[in-house]
Amino acid sequence: MTPIMSKSTAAELVVSARIRRGLTWAGIAEQLGTPVVWTTAALLGQHPMSAEQADRACQLLGLGEEVAESLQLQPSRGSDPATMADPTIYRFSEALSVYGPALKALIHEEFGDGIMSAINFQVDISRRPDPDGDRVVITFDGKFLDYKW
Amino acid sequence: MTPIMSKSTAAELVVSARIRRGLTWAGIAEQLGTPVVWTTAALLGQHPMSAEQADRACQLLGLGEEVAESLQLQPSRGSDPATMADPTIYRFSEALSVYGPALKALIHEEFGDGIMSAINFQVDISRRPDPDGDRVVITFDGKFLDYKW
Amino acid sequence: MTPIMSKSTAAELVVSARIRRGLTWAGIAEQLGTPVVWTTAALLGQHPMSAEQADRACQLLGLGEEVAESLQLQPSRGSDPATMADPTIYRFSEALSVYGPALKALIHEEFGDGIMSAINFQVDISRRPDPDGDRVVITFDGKFLDYKW
Amino acid sequence: MTPIMSKSTAAELVVSARIRRGLTWAGIAEQLGTPVVWTTAALLGQHPMSAEQADRACQLLGLGEEVAESLQLQPSRGSDPATMADPTIYRFSEALSVYGPALKALIHEEFGDGIMSAINFQVDISRRPDPDGDRVVITFDGKFLDYKW
Amino acid sequence: MTPIMSKSTAAELVVSARIRRGLTWAGIAEQLGTPVVWTTAALLGQHPMSAEQADRACQLLGLGEEVAESLQLQPSRGSDPATMADPTIYRFSEALSVYGPALKALIHEEFGDGIMSAINFQVDISRRPDPDGDRVVITFDGKFLDYKW
Amino acid sequence: MTPIMSKSTAAELVVSARIRRGLTWAGIAEQLGTPVVWTTAALLGQHPMSAEQADRACQLLGLGEEVAESLQLQPSRGSDPATMADPTIYRFSEALSVYGPALKALIHEEFGDGIMSAINFQVDISRRPDPDGDRVVITFDGKFLDYKW
Amino acid sequence: MTPIMSKSTAAELVVSARIRRGLTWAGIAEQLGTPVVWTTAALLGQHPMSAEQADRACQLLGLGEEVAESLQLQPSRGSDPATMADPTIYRFSEALSVYGPALKALIHEEFGDGIMSAINFQVDISRRPDPDGDRVVITFDGKFLDYKW
Amino acid sequence: MTPIMSKSTAAELVVSARIRRGLTWAGIAEQLGTPVVWTTAALLGQHPMSAEQADRACQLLGLGEEVAESLQLQPSRGSDPATMADPTIYRFSEALSVYGPALKALIHEEFGDGIMSAINFQVDISRRPDPDGDRVVITFDGKFLDYKW
Amino acid sequence: MTPIMSKSTAAELVVSARIRRGLTWAGIAEQLGTPVVWTTAALLGQHPMSAEQADRACQLLGLGEEVAESLQLQPSRGSDPATMADPTIYRFSEALSVYGPALKALIHEEFGDGIMSAINFQVDISRRPDPDGDRVVITFDGKFLDYKW
Amino acid sequence: MTPIMSKSTAAELVVSARIRRGLTWAGIAEQLGTPVVWTTAALLGQHPMSAEQADRACQLLGLGEEVAESLQLQPSRGSDPATMADPTIYRFSEALSVYGPALKALIHEEFGDGIMSAINFQVDISRRPDPDGDRVVITFDGKFLDYKW
Repeated sequence: MTPIMSKSTAAELVVSARIRRGLTWAGIAEQLGTPVVWTTAALLGQHPMSAEQADRACQLLGLGEEVAESLQLQPSRGSDPATMADPTIYRFSEALSVYGPALKALIHEEFGDGIMSAINFQVDISRRPDPDGDRVVITFDGKFLDYKW
Repeated sequence: MTPIMSKSTAAELVVSARIRRGLTWAGIAEQLGTPVVWTTAALLGQHPMSAEQADRACQLLGLGEEVAESLQLQPSRGSDPATMADPTIYRFSEALSVYGPALKALIHEEFGDGIMSAINFQVDISRRPDPDGDRVVITFDGKFLDYKW
Repeated sequence: MTPIMSKSTAAELVVSARIRRGLTWAGIAEQLGTPVVWTTAALLGQHPMSAEQADRACQLLGLGEEVAESLQLQPSRGSDPATMADPTIYRFSEALSVYGPALKALIHEEFGDGIMSAINFQVDISRRPDPDGDRVVITFDGKFLDYKW
Repeated sequence: MTPIMSKSTAAELVVSARIRRGLTWAGIAEQLGTPVVWTTAALLGQHPMSAEQADRACQLLGLGEEVAESLQLQPSRGSDPATMADPTIYRFSEALSVYGPALKALIHEEFGDGIMSAINFQVDISRRPDPDGDRVVITFDGKFLDYKW
Repeated sequence: MTPIMSKSTAAELVVSARIRRGLTWAGIAEQLGTPVVWTTAALLGQHPMSAEQADRACQLLGLGEEVAESLQLQPSRGSDPATMADPTIYRFSEALSVYGPALKALIHEEFGDGIMSAINFQVDISRRPDPDGDRVVITFDGKFLDYKW
Repeated sequence: MTPIMSKSTAAELVVSARIRRGLTWAGIAEQLGTPVVWTTAALLGQHPMSAEQADRACQLLGLGEEVAESLQLQPSRGSDPATMADPTIYRFSEALSVYGPALKALIHEEFGDGIMSAINFQVDISRRPDPDGDRVVITFDGKFLDYKW
Repeated sequence: MTPIMSKSTAAELVVSARIRRGLTWAGIAEQLGTPVVWTTAALLGQHPMSAEQADRACQLLGLGEEVAESLQLQPSRGSDPATMADPTIYRFSEALSVYGPALKALIHEEFGDGIMSAINFQVDISRRPDPDGDRVVITFDGKFLDYKW
Repeated sequence: MTPIMSKSTAAELVVSARIRRGLTWAGIAEQLGTPVVWTTAALLGQHPMSAEQADRACQLLGLGEEVAESLQLQPSRGSDPATMADPTIYRFSEALSVYGPALKALIHEEFGDGIMSAINFQVDISRRPDPDGDRVVITFDGKFLDYKW
Repeated sequence: MTPIMSKSTAAELVVSARIRRGLTWAGIAEQLGTPVVWTTAALLGQHPMSAEQADRACQLLGLGEEVAESLQLQPSRGSDPATMADPTIYRFSEALSVYGPALKALIHEEFGDGIMSAINFQVDISRRPDPDGDRVVITFDGKFLDYKW
Repeated sequence: MTPIMSKSTAAELVVSARIRRGLTWAGIAEQLGTPVVWTTAALLGQHPMSAEQADRACQLLGLGEEVAESLQLQPSRGSDPATMADPTIYRFSEALSVYGPALKALIHEEFGDGIMSAINFQVDISRRPDPDGDRVVITFDGKFLDYKW
């Protein structure tokens, strides 16, 4: 028996097919009718897709059933440290290192003792035009969960 | 000669005075006329304040000149790993570990090869009411910087 | 101004007073009317207490107001790695290392894609008599949170 | 000579076959007559199975003898750090980081100087219905071992 | 209130007093009627002593009550990595790194799936005269615990 | 040219053959006339065997010349951290973390400034029957080496 | 479908072809009309090349289209720790460890609170003849970015 | 006897005095007649100063003899990891991580097998006006040392 | 195109051929007319060989051109941590951990502020007969480089 | 009771006194009649001194009895990682990383399976005049210990 293709292999094929077919992540998301950050994350292996979503994505990308099967797998989430050191990703970590304690203080001030959920959670990204250079705007939107015994 | 008070000692005094005087971070920011995340981060030691800002903050908090002097120091930025493991802060790191590669892919798709600046950058936090439980909304807004030789 | 006593100093005083007064954690919890694991964790610095809880605890322990003030502080949660290596605590980490992937698989099977909350969460401990040697029974009880965009 | 298949390869095949055959872990455990967490952990490589258990499991999963041979191997136990960072598993580690010292204190108070065994030990998982959202209930049940010279 | 003296401070005083009084660890153990490795470990902070043992030890060493109080504390066990790198201690770690997998294989062969307990456990050390140079003989003697569900 | 088989590949084949042939480590050692811990460690790759020992071992195990060639290689000794975290091996590390400083103190007291050699060194393992459960007895026996300039 | 060749495989082929064809990095850069450090970094996988640049480079090196395709990929930037420990590269890290805080102080003195961009950034290397031994001169030239909210 | 003041304490006093007296690092360097990066690094504890340099610096800064004594000490060089994570310093590390292998390749191409010395070495920093925003220019200038047996 | 063989593969083949042909490192060095430590290090991948040296070495070892090509490659120097933990290599690290600060102090006393070069550097090894057991004598001989601005 | 002064405090006082009295390490060693590297290492806390050696050293340095008492303590040997990163010490580590596997190969070739003792061991340092710049010569001389069961 062949084991189900790993999600990292599937992601590698998705990335290759996307480039060769000249598709955009945004375009794929639009075709699937799913949010763009969620879709990109799912195709890179961080969320399981439904059978329909996986089939539709593979059809768009010209990929076979073994990729679609993999995209439906329950993932083991997270990225390896080497990936997190890439400058484009590192800037987020740096911002957290600078603003994390302030965000904690303000979450507690506004909501009490608890956290912003990273599970009941969504992320969006947009471009904000600015005469001094356009800006990347990322929004983290998570349900507040209070420490409740 | 006494050395200038360290920013961590100053932050400890700021936190203690804020609690004892019953002030909020938002209230202090409003009094200073500065954004709330910036103000909180600066008082916790991550940004230098101007002499006026530092004096005004210490007046509000009933703290002496040696704290105001410290608040104006150029900081060595960043938080220690123990602090970053606190659950309220960790959720942001976890979200980055899950969505970081997707955000990188989408920044490159929309803007080309480059990064979101963590320097020409601002953060905001707000509460979004939701019948299923209110939500924490954090916005990261940074200038796009393209790799330019 | 004296800064508020750190939660680790407060915990050290709580531990010392508890031993010298011959009190038990269970007894203190009973007096406070709060669950025993929550109470012990709070007195060791992992949860903020209300003013009443803190005052009542300090009264029982013969500790002063500066300890009560500290017990109400919002904590930065977590334990340092040296503490986690103590054999009594390490056995839990070992069990997670052995059973963690199985628990993940079973949570997904029973509940779908999501996690057991560590925030909306409670822990209990009890002794189960057994002729072959009594048993420690620890129950983790957390709300299921599904990945919801 | 071909070496015996590694337990990680066997686990990969078990996972793939389970999904493709539409079996549940609970169903496999029931068929084997073994506890569900133990069974899942054993099939993922953390416990050796008896020849009968391994053969029966492979028959259910449509896997060959080389998998059954591997499932009987004495394992080298434990999970790699990347796996432990998956959010579903991490929440347990976080809970231990918050409640570990309290559990240690309460074990010593109730039982004296010693540990909860992670060897003479069993884990169970169940769903507890709750109007505010169902709950995951995990029970760790280990024999108390006292430090005995 | 003064907190109870930490076990590391107590150990430092024990070591200093032992040297200045010209006592041996073996002699102290003999006086206490306790095994020599256990006694040394307990005085260095790895085991709690009974009140009688602690008082008797402090009397021999000319140390005060605050040391005796500390010696009775429940310890957080383990040594820091810097200490473990000392050559005299490192040789044991090296031997484990070379012979650990062999010992694991032989324990499983002789006893089945399980471990040698480090809790129901004792250590002894002796000198074995040898014409080629005397030998250090360390015996680890722990109860076998089998994986039992 | 084919490179000589790595000692880890050889060990994997030895382990597989031993199981399939139903041999014990003790039995192999007896056949070779070599101590059991040494033999097991050597077959797992931690000691070089003589040509005769390697040939004899491979004959018993039904393995070819390329394995015998590998068993004679000078090893790079040591085990990887993942292996050392297996519970059966970890208990030894834990015992060292608890008793290491005591053993150091007692070695210095009895022998002076120096170490127990891990080179001029032997390990033995035996079972000691005990009505409360049989015990694993491990003996480390190494020549004392004093710091000598 | 074959995935696009990884940038590390492409770099390995570039390095091999460069040596076998007797080309220099400087010569390749001259042929491409691009700066030498940028070109070398891009061919080693740290910058995406345009289709023209990639095709031209592969033509010079006698490499096929699959390499050219890889050279155009958006990279995940950064080098692994083993590479950074090579003595030729380590000297730069050492210099930063010695002069980093001084450079930080001088950047703040001359420019205010901010950083030298590593994105809007170029590096050059040259040889400066010196009777006591020629010198390597590396210039880092990055736009100043001030902390701007 | 009082031990000589540590270089980190001396640096703290230098920094405090410099701010309070309104001196610049460049101004101090000019007064001492020494290069500005060297001077700043030396005052921050990375190079020993001559007695004259140390006395002259302390006179300018209004610091006592015990600081001057410390500035002459032979340093143990290097910065701690927390400092190296400050964004202003981190950008240099990031640039090395991206361009390090390219610089290594070009040093070997131009000079042969060897390194740029970090000992026979100097650093300079300057501002280069640019209509798009001024630039920080850092020059590393080190003697080439070839691997010579 | 086949990439040039990696230096680690080349080293593996060199080691295998050396054993099978019954050659010694010293004998190979003598044939090449190069110092023995340098030769061994170069064949293990730490120094580039000239074309003649590489060809001559491969001829002695019966290895092909693809190995000779690899031996001429510019290496990325250094050994991985697992290798450095082998007892025979670790003893050197231990000696440095014990004597490093003393050697630093004595280098500064005798030569002033600077280092012993590890580039303009040679190592030799010899056997010194001793009635109490022969001794390994290793000599490190490097040019002194003073901190020179 | 005052605990015995720690060896790190004693070393700090020794270093301060040595500088203020204008003594050299070599001079102190000569006065004590002990080898210079041993003496420096012992005064820095890596070897216990005899009472006479300690008294004589303290007399030369003008230090009190509490230092002499500390110098006789049995040390916990080794240096912290920050110290080992100092460039003067790091060069030795780098050399080991480059030549360690070669030295291992040559020790095994010349002596068989075993190690160079780091206990029955001495180090010497000398200056070798050279027209191209004087050289630091370090000799490690340790007894060979063969793996002997």
